[in-house]
Amino acid sequence: MRRPFVHRETLRWNDADLQGVVNNAVYMTVVEQARFAYFGSLGLLRGTSFPFLLGTSTIRFVRPARPGMVVDVEARVVRLGTKSFDMTYGISHDGITLAEARATLVWVDEAHRSIPIPADARRTFAEHEDLQDG
Amino acid sequence: MRRPFVHRETLRWNDADLQGVVNNAVYMTVVEQARFAYFGSLGLLRGTSFPFLLGTSTIRFVRPARPGMVVDVEARVVRLGTKSFDMTYGISHDGITLAEARATLVWVDEAHRSIPIPADARRTFAEHEDLQDG
Amino acid sequence: MRRPFVHRETLRWNDADLQGVVNNAVYMTVVEQARFAYFGSLGLLRGTSFPFLLGTSTIRFVRPARPGMVVDVEARVVRLGTKSFDMTYGISHDGITLAEARATLVWVDEAHRSIPIPADARRTFAEHEDLQDG
Amino acid sequence: MRRPFVHRETLRWNDADLQGVVNNAVYMTVVEQARFAYFGSLGLLRGTSFPFLLGTSTIRFVRPARPGMVVDVEARVVRLGTKSFDMTYGISHDGITLAEARATLVWVDEAHRSIPIPADARRTFAEHEDLQDG
Repeated sequence: MRRPFVHRETLRWNDADLQGVVNNAVYMTVVEQARFAYFGSLGLLRGTSFPFLLGTSTIRFVRPARPGMVVDVEARVVRLGTKSFDMTYGISHDGITLAEARATLVWVDEAHRSIPIPADARRTFAEHEDLQDG
Repeated sequence: MRRPFVHRETLRWNDADLQGVVNNAVYMTVVEQARFAYFGSLGLLRGTSFPFLLGTSTIRFVRPARPGMVVDVEARVVRLGTKSFDMTYGISHDGITLAEARATLVWVDEAHRSIPIPADARRTFAEHEDLQDG
Repeated sequence: MRRPFVHRETLRWNDADLQGVVNNAVYMTVVEQARFAYFGSLGLLRGTSFPFLLGTSTIRFVRPARPGMVVDVEARVVRLGTKSFDMTYGISHDGITLAEARATLVWVDEAHRSIPIPADARRTFAEHEDLQDG
Repeated sequence: MRRPFVHRETLRWNDADLQGVVNNAVYMTVVEQARFAYFGSLGLLRGTSFPFLLGTSTIRFVRPARPGMVVDVEARVVRLGTKSFDMTYGISHDGITLAEARATLVWVDEAHRSIPIPADARRTFAEHEDLQDG
């Protein structure tokens, strides 16, 4: 089995809210950044744009992070449908879980209309993730 | 039955991402702002701080919003547990749904430790929402 | 003399930093939003894009704002050059100044290359602001 | 002469605006992050809070940055007054200038009231920056 893709990010001072907590809205941005890195590494971005829109996303907050903290985001594609796919994310610091997330992403064309996931993208995912396609 | 609380917000130019879409991370901030208004109107804020932390949150993206768009967020408390409660949110523009969200919120003391929801807060929720408490 | 353009904005909970202060970086976003409203009202936007890039910007912080506060941004074009123009902004709450800003903006084409400010835009500014053109 | 403090930051996908440009409001946040790193390295933070408020800040935009770009922020204290001090910042990528900034910062106590810069902080700045104090 392949090792999952891991994106490393340093939280900014500006990422903390007025209660001193890096909250779910920021975790969502960190997850987005992990997706940007993941898709960039697979050669699946369109310039700086994503070939999908975020459908449903869920974040479970486990622990607050602090400004300046280095976090790792483990990102996996766990389901590959015809027009959409699912990813899971684990955000951690020094191996301690801060949050867990899951998202359903819908493949789109450049006009943001839903289209089937192209064959070459399917192949790339399947190779990278050891997924059973279909 | 009471009418739900509605918060109105104008989306900023800066809320759109580089694909021109106001995405889920911003919808999450808009939902947070609706919570701020809801808790302020019920007199349940601690200064400018919330008496809870966000546990799990789910957002379902339906349609992109555009910069400058006025959106309404309908916010309801739909479950009142001993130490946590659930809220639902509907984000719309001119009556057309843009996103739906749900969150589980955990009541905390000023040091961010989980505590039971106080009796007066329970009463306020129950009155405002016509909830069955318990 | 014409009355200056005023944009009204409500500060979000998320606009405060971890010291509880709405700081200059947010004031800059509020000023940007005032520009978006100003250019929208004059019919000078390209869709949702600006026809200029921000060159130099200065913000003087006078007082911190609080989350939920309604602020007014008075925006004026105070200089109209051949390829760039200057704006000033006053951010206030209930008539009390929170910050003052000034920006030099460089007119650009759709590929973000500097071009002379077109005659119709010059005329619109001059009419709106009672500026001496040139 | 000492080498200036340099903070390295990776721009996020979310840092680009809808015109695809990482603009001055984000450069301001990147500069803030450099200040956080600089003050942390000198042991002058109060927990995660700054011992000063930003008074006046100026940013000169030179070139747009792209999402994912690694930028270096060179930060210096260039003036040390009784109650305030000035810093300059150069933001660059691969040695090419993206933006330049300057800020006047006002020393404050924990209640955000202006106070003289303490002797030990003056000494720390003077040592780190080879500044003539006074």
